[in-house]
Amino acid sequence: MAQGFGFTLHAKDGAARTGVIHTTRGEIRTPAFMPVGTAATVKAMLPDSVRATGADILLGNTYHLMLRPTAERIARLGGLHRFMNWDRPILTDSGGFQVMSLASLRKLTEEGVTFSSHIDGSKHHLSPERSMEIQRLLGSDIVMCFDECPALPATEEQVAASMRLSMRWAQRSRDAFGDRPGHALFGIMQGGVTRDLREESATALKSIGFDGYAVGGLAVGEGQEAMFGVLDYAPGFLPEDKPRYLMGVGKPDDIVGAVQRGIDMMDCVLPSRSGRTGQAWTRRGQVNIKNARHQDDPRPLDEDCTCPACRGYSRAYLHHVFKAGEMISGMLLTWHNLHYYQELMAGLRGAIATGQLSAFVADFHARRAEGDIEPI
Amino acid sequence: MAQGFGFTLHAKDGAARTGVIHTTRGEIRTPAFMPVGTAATVKAMLPDSVRATGADILLGNTYHLMLRPTAERIARLGGLHRFMNWDRPILTDSGGFQVMSLASLRKLTEEGVTFSSHIDGSKHHLSPERSMEIQRLLGSDIVMCFDECPALPATEEQVAASMRLSMRWAQRSRDAFGDRPGHALFGIMQGGVTRDLREESATALKSIGFDGYAVGGLAVGEGQEAMFGVLDYAPGFLPEDKPRYLMGVGKPDDIVGAVQRGIDMMDCVLPSRSGRTGQAWTRRGQVNIKNARHQDDPRPLDEDCTCPACRGYSRAYLHHVFKAGEMISGMLLTWHNLHYYQELMAGLRGAIATGQLSAFVADFHARRAEGDIEPI
Repeated sequence: MAQGFGFTLHAKDGAARTGVIHTTRGEIRTPAFMPVGTAATVKAMLPDSVRATGADILLGNTYHLMLRPTAERIARLGGLHRFMNWDRPILTDSGGFQVMSLASLRKLTEEGVTFSSHIDGSKHHLSPERSMEIQRLLGSDIVMCFDECPALPATEEQVAASMRLSMRWAQRSRDAFGDRPGHALFGIMQGGVTRDLREESATALKSIGFDGYAVGGLAVGEGQEAMFGVLDYAPGFLPEDKPRYLMGVGKPDDIVGAVQRGIDMMDCVLPSRSGRTGQAWTRRGQVNIKNARHQDDPRPLDEDCTCPACRGYSRAYLHHVFKAGEMISGMLLTWHNLHYYQELMAGLRGAIATGQLSAFVADFHARRAEGDIEPI
Repeated sequence: MAQGFGFTLHAKDGAARTGVIHTTRGEIRTPAFMPVGTAATVKAMLPDSVRATGADILLGNTYHLMLRPTAERIARLGGLHRFMNWDRPILTDSGGFQVMSLASLRKLTEEGVTFSSHIDGSKHHLSPERSMEIQRLLGSDIVMCFDECPALPATEEQVAASMRLSMRWAQRSRDAFGDRPGHALFGIMQGGVTRDLREESATALKSIGFDGYAVGGLAVGEGQEAMFGVLDYAPGFLPEDKPRYLMGVGKPDDIVGAVQRGIDMMDCVLPSRSGRTGQAWTRRGQVNIKNARHQDDPRPLDEDCTCPACRGYSRAYLHHVFKAGEMISGMLLTWHNLHYYQELMAGLRGAIATGQLSAFVADFHARRAEGDIEPI
C-alpha cells in the first residue's frame, strides 16, 4: 500500500517462506533477523560491523529514544538514520511494550498511557497518535502500530479486552499515520494463546489494512511450546502477500521453529546481550566463555565460523579479556553472535529456496545435540 | 646489535629527528607514538582499527600480563602477538614501574622486588632475570631493562641510589637477555631532574651497550617545565645512532616538546583512557563530550578529521551515547583520539623531514590557542 514499499515472495517450503521486502533504503532478505539498536546503537558494535554480519535492517526503540535524546532532537539532527550512521532500513517499535516492561507509575486509559521515565522519573505520554508522531520524527522505514500487551498471567477475558483495545488503537494508528510514501505501517495481532482471539484480531487488522503484520504478545514468558502452538495457526490468519513479523524472538531454535511456521521477520536483543555477558552461540550449541575450561584452549569459538572473533582469537583469549573486564570481550562476542544469527538466516533462506528446509532443520538440531552446550 | 633490528635516521631539524626502526615484524616510523595494550588489548579497539589509525607498534604491560593470564600461558598459546592478534612490533615494559604504582606489600632488595597482586593479593616476584624471562615468554620485539623508579618526592641521594641500583639491574638485564636475534633490548636512563645523575646513568648504559635507550623517571608528577628541562640535555647524553624512547608521555603538547628535544618514541594511556571518559583531543584543543553544549550540535568533533567518529557522527550523537553509557562512545572517542595522535606524529615526521618543524609547532600552538578548549 505504501509507495516505495513492497514484498516479493520467492519460494515456499511447507509453511516457510523466503522473499525480499523492498524499501526506499534497500532490500531486506527474508526470513530476516533484525539486530536491536535500542538507544541508537547496536550495543558494542559500529554500524559498518553490523552490516558486515549481513544485517539488512535494524530495530530502534521508540520508548528509549523518546526519553533520550528525544525524537524532536533526532528530527532536528536529520533523523535516526543520519544520527546513528545507518543508511539502510530501520524498523521502530511503538513504545507500548517497553512502557509496560520498563516504565513506572503507568496509567492506562482508552486514550493512551501516561508513565514515568525509568531514567529520571519525568512524566510522559504515549498514545496511537503520539507514537505515530514520534516514529515519523525518527524517520523509521517500518512503523509499528501502538498496541497494548497485557502482563502475564492474564485471564482470557483480560487478554480479549486488551486485544480489542489494541485493535481500536490499530485503527487510530492507521488514521494518524496517514499516507507517507516510502514508509510502511505494520499492524500487530494480539490474542494471547487463544485461537479465536488471534483470528478475531487478524480479521480486525486485515479490515483496516496494513503493509505488514506482526504477531505480538508472544515470547513474553509463555514458553516455546505454547509459542509454537500459536504459530502453528496464527500466521495462516494473515495475508499471504504481506510480511509477517514475530516480535522479540529469540533463541536460535525459536527462530528456526518460527521460520518453519511461516514467519518472515524477527528481532531480539539476545545475540548482543549474550555477547556482553560472555555467552556465544555457535552451530554446536552455546559456549560460556567465563568457564575456566577455556583458559588454555587455543581453538576459536567455532572452527568453521568466518567472523573476526573466530578468525583472530582463541577461546583462551576471549576468556582472558572477559575475566579482565575488557571491552573487546563484548565487542568480539557480540560480533560473533550477530554473525552467527545472520548465517543462520542465510542458511534458512537458502534451504527454503531449494526446498531443503527439513534437511537443514534436522542438521541444525543434530549439530547442537552433539555439540558443547554449556550451562549459562 | 640485535640481528634483524636497526635504526635509520633520515633527517634532523634542530634536535628533532625522523627515521625508521627496522624489526623483523615491520618498520616503525619515528617519531612514533605507541598505543598501550595493557592486558593484551588496546581498550575499546580491535587491532585492525588500531593499525588503521597509523600505529606501527603497540606497548604491552609485563606487570598486568604476568598476573593475568600469565606469561607462561601466553607462551603456550603462541606468544603475545598471536594471542592478541597483532602481528606487528610489540614493546613490553619491564614491570618495574607498575609494581611500584599498582601492587601492594612491595619489598625491594638488591636482588629484586616481591609484591602482592592488585587483582587477587597473590604473591609475586620480579627481578632483572625474571623480567627478561617474562618478556621472552611474551615474545616482545623490544624488551625493556628491569629498573626501579623512586616514588616522589625523593631527595637527590635517594634518586642517586635508586639510579645506581637500576644501572646494576641494567647489567643483569643485559646478561640475562643474552643474544636473541630479532629481539632488541633497551636500557633505561634514570637520575631524576639532576643533570649529573642523568649523565652518569647514560654513561653506565652506554658502556653496557643497548639497541635503544629510554629516558625513564619522567612524567611522574614533576610537571612539563621540569620534564622539558631534563629533555633539553638528557637525549644528548645518548648515542645518536640509536632510538630514544620517552616512557609514559603524554599530552599532545608534551609530545611535541619531546620530539623537538630529540625523542623518537613515546607511549601513553591518555588517548585511550580519555576516550572512555568522554574527552576528545583535536587540533583545536580538547572537547569534553559530556558537556550539555554538545547535545544539539550537528558538527563532528573536528571538521577536518578523517577518523570514523568524525566522518560518521555528530557531537550530539557522541554526547547522547556517552550519557546513555553506550560502549560505542568509548569505541568512537578512543578511535578518534588514537587517530589524532597518529596524525600528529605523521605531521611531526613530515615537518622534520622537510625542515619545517618550527612552523609546524607554531601552527600547532596557534590552532589550540584559538580553539574550543573545554575544562575536563
